[in-house]
This record gives sequence, C-alpha cells and structure tokens, in this order.
Amino acid sequence: MSDDIDVLVHEVGPRDGLQSIETIFPTQAKLEWIRSQAAAGIPQIQVGSFVRPDLLPQMADSADVVKEAVKIPGLIVSALVPNLKGAQNAIAAGAHQLGVVMSVSEAHNKSNITRSVEESLEEFRKIVEYRIDVESDRTTVISGGLATSFGCTISGLVPVRDVMKRAEQLLARGADRLSVADTVGFANPRQVKDLFDELFRTVGDNIPVGAHFHDTRGLGLANAFAAVEAGVRELDSCLGGLGGCPYAPGASGNIVTEDLVFMLEAMGMKTGVDLDALLQTRELMEGYLKGEPTQGTFHKAGPPLGFVPATIVA
Amino acid sequence: MSDDIDVLVHEVGPRDGLQSIETIFPTQAKLEWIRSQAAAGIPQIQVGSFVRPDLLPQMADSADVVKEAVKIPGLIVSALVPNLKGAQNAIAAGAHQLGVVMSVSEAHNKSNITRSVEESLEEFRKIVEYRIDVESDRTTVISGGLATSFGCTISGLVPVRDVMKRAEQLLARGADRLSVADTVGFANPRQVKDLFDELFRTVGDNIPVGAHFHDTRGLGLANAFAAVEAGVRELDSCLGGLGGCPYAPGASGNIVTEDLVFMLEAMGMKTGVDLDALLQTRELMEGYLKGEPTQGTFHKAGPPLGFVPATIVA
Repeated sequence: MSDDIDVLVHEVGPRDGLQSIETIFPTQAKLEWIRSQAAAGIPQIQVGSFVRPDLLPQMADSADVVKEAVKIPGLIVSALVPNLKGAQNAIAAGAHQLGVVMSVSEAHNKSNITRSVEESLEEFRKIVEYRIDVESDRTTVISGGLATSFGCTISGLVPVRDVMKRAEQLLARGADRLSVADTVGFANPRQVKDLFDELFRTVGDNIPVGAHFHDTRGLGLANAFAAVEAGVRELDSCLGGLGGCPYAPGASGNIVTEDLVFMLEAMGMKTGVDLDALLQTRELMEGYLKGEPTQGTFHKAGPPLGFVPATIVA
Repeated sequence: MSDDIDVLVHEVGPRDGLQSIETIFPTQAKLEWIRSQAAAGIPQIQVGSFVRPDLLPQMADSADVVKEAVKIPGLIVSALVPNLKGAQNAIAAGAHQLGVVMSVSEAHNKSNITRSVEESLEEFRKIVEYRIDVESDRTTVISGGLATSFGCTISGLVPVRDVMKRAEQLLARGADRLSVADTVGFANPRQVKDLFDELFRTVGDNIPVGAHFHDTRGLGLANAFAAVEAGVRELDSCLGGLGGCPYAPGASGNIVTEDLVFMLEAMGMKTGVDLDALLQTRELMEGYLKGEPTQGTFHKAGPPLGFVPATIVA
C-alpha cells in the first residue's frame, strides 16, 4: 500500500457489481470506467473474474480487460479466480493480484463452488505452487478470501474459530494476504470489531487484511467503520453500489464506494481519492446501465459545509 | 432507564417525522401509533412539540396527545418545547420529559429560533425554575438539547469546545440530562466517538446523555454505533425514517428505528423491543401516509438466518 494513503479502497464494481446485473458492459466501457476511476485516485480495482464464460457472460472478456488495465500507471489490477485454471489465465493476462475465495461455511462452499472446504484449500495450495513455478521476474499477490465469515444463508451462524482456522490454513498454504467477507450481509459492527480483533491476535499485525461488506441490512458503513477501528486498512466497495438491491436475496450490493470514501476522508483518513472525480466516474458508469438501479447518498447530498477531505487533491 | 435494557431507543417519529411531512395525522392516528409502538416495547416516545400551531399545524394537538399518551403504562412521554410557554403547556399536559433544544451554532440558533444562544440559555433557566415552582409531587425531567453539535448548514464546522461549553452551561442551569444532535446530518463516526469521549470527560459519567442522528449522508447507523462505543446509552430514531429525504436540504430524516433496534439487538444490546411487533407498528403508521416515502432496510431484508435478538420476547 502506498505511503500516501491511510486506507486502501479496493473497487470491486467491475467484478462484483457487473456480475450481479443483466446488462453486459462492452470491454471498452469497462476500461473507460476503470481508467476514469484510476484517474480519480482509486489505487486498486478488481476488474474481472476468471470463471467459465457460460456461467457469467458478463465476465467473459476478463483477460482482455486485465491486459489493458495493467497498462494504467500505478493501478493495482486484481481479479477473482475460482480455481487453478482461472488463476493460470489471470496470471497469463498479467493481473497483479488474485483473489481466491472459499467459504468458511462448508454448506455455502459446497453450494457456491461445489467443493468441500478441504478441496478448496488444496486448490489454493496448487495455485500458490503454480505461481512459484511459473514466475521468476514478478510475483502475483495471492489473496485468500474467506466468504461467509459473518454468517451464512444456508447454515446461519458461522463460528469465529472456524474463520480463524481457515485463515491460518490459507496463510500456511502461502496466502500473501487475507480478505474477510460478509458475503451475504449478515454482519453487525460489534461482531466485525470482535472478529477482526481476534484475527489480528491470531495472525499478527504483519499480514495485510481486507474487509468486504454488503449493505443488505443498512449496516455496511457501520461495519466498515468497525473494521477500521479494529485496524483494517483495506476495504472493498462498489461504485454506486451497483448490483445492490438489498431486497433480493443473493443480490444485495457492496457498500458504496463514494459514500465509503467520504466517510474515510471526513474521518481524516487519506484514501488518495478525489471525490469530485469519483462522482464523474459514477456518472460515466451509470451511462452504460440499462435501467439497473444504483445506490448511495453522497452523490445527492454532497459534502457538508466546511468539509475538508484528508486527501489533498493536487 | 429500566434495568432490563442496555440502550434506550427514543422514538421521535410522532414529532420529528410528522413535523417534516405534509400529511397531518389525526390525533387518534398518532395515538394508535404511539400505543402500538409502546406495546412493541419502545420505552420512550417524543409525542409532540409545543410550538405555535400556525407554525406547525401537524403539532397543534400535542397537548391532547400527551394527555392520552401518559396513560400508557410504563411509557416515558417526552415532548419538544421551544420556550417557557411551550414548557408550561407541556407540563400542564403531564409530559414526563421536556426536550429543550438550542443550537450550539450561534447562526443556526438565530435562524432557527430567533434568539442568541445566551438568550436561549436564559430561557432554559426560566423553564427549570418554573418546573421547580409549580411541581411538588412529581418532577418533569428536563433534557438540554445541543443542536448542530457536529456542524452547521450556515457556519460549517462547530468547534468541540463550543459544545462542551454549552453542555456545561445547560447543566449549570439545571438540565437533568443532555441530548447531542447532528441536526443537519454532518457527523462522521470518528467525530462522534471523539466528541462523546470528550463530553463524558467534561461532564462525567453520571449525566445521562442521548444522541440524535440524521442519515443525510448514509452514516447514521455508523454514527449510532460510534456513539454506543463511546458509552452513549440513549439514541433518538424515527420509525420508517419518516420525514427522511436525504436529498432535500433541511428535510433529511432521522435514523430508522427498526434498523437501529436490529443493529443493537444483533450486537447483543437489549432494547426491550420486539422487532416483529415494531414492523407491525411501521405498517400501521404507513397506512396513514399520503404518498410520503419511508426509509429503512430491515423491514425488507428481515433478520439474518440464525439471528438471536438480545431481548427475549416474553
């Protein structure tokens, strides 16, 4: 993470947002979005997902998007990969970071990626080994994602000790960093604070840890604040909360990037992001939608009188 | 505050919600709402405002509402009063608690209640004296309200030391408790935490302190969590976020009662409230609206699988 920022805002809209809506963005539209948002100061963008195109046609061009996105100076380009084959393709395309996600909940993992958690851990090990084998002059960062860390739509409560165990197993298999996700919007801020406190006690302070929240029950930003309070310095979010319909099970959106950036900047935490430019990116992105709703409040309410962002825009 | 609850949720919808919308609720509709919500376990409701009826016709029946509401067993009935005359009428009607509000921002106080802050403090002193003079067998609780404590639409930033000074002046003039308000939706959770930390250092831990947030920029529940973290145990909120339009200046709504109760209960903090019954009150209230929008997510998303509220409903 750059020394110039206090919290890394990781935009996941081109992946998590776009995969949740009907409209398929043309490759050039995705790249316009990504370039615009990088220019606004967003340091890291998850630009696609290396899944089977018949399962997620919105993501079919992910290799092309990665290949262009990595040309943007300074931008960290991340991609989601479900398995070794996806990882191979993402590394071939030049992604800087791979997000490899498994669910802490056994039932959710089986339902979502048709594997047991042990099988997912084994696949994770293969991905790390593959990277070591093929790479000499660069190192793709591999992030171990822990989905359903705060609860599961199938099995309900997820024990904190299960999250700790899977976190340690991912690190033992070579994860460079962790991403802890409230995949289904179950978390509350007390739980978030407690879980991250426990996680930092378990894995130490040297492993970068990100948090991924959905706003299903209106607690997304409260959870983001709680995570920051616990020491988390990387947060996933989605421009305009795209894909966000809190009322359709399975389709509740990520926290809204511009609202998150406003909160952090108002709290005196530098994100490196220019809020005005970010709102322009939002408008650009909305121009490609075909009726899908967006979320958020900052774009309408604007900054409060006297607002001084932590990031000084040059 | 009852020993059975950890956080007092103070419903202000029949005042702050109804005064912000066009529709005038008949007295019986207000009482249906109040009775239903009290039955759902809400311990305190601000049922009206003793202002000039020509200024706020929605509040013209406040004396009648108070007179009936105080018959509800166990309910603490509060009312907003802008001046001595309002306080006299509210006490005559039998209100248990008076909220007397002044703005920390001089400019906002002048604009809102056409007095200097010093004049407001003098009026506050008269209200406390009047209560002492007329009351023998009971004591109406007087809450000193500090509006614009987190910023002002006219003068922007409000210094923390000004909030502390006014808090001490209100207590010196006999306030039984304090209510600190983000009247215009400017606060961020870091600021909230810091301000309440400072306030408890200044006035001690024995003065009950409430917090009043608006959700103008999506940070309402994050701010509520931050206040709870700082030790605040009383929060104002509004059923359905009534009156809430984050996009119209001056009309941004309070945080949503049912979302707040869900957050607190999920965090293991007892509110004494039955969430199912609260949603029924919401429906009852919505039945009287004439097109005004309501807010909130919990009523649509419902509780997460495995949710165990802190309050055990008998």
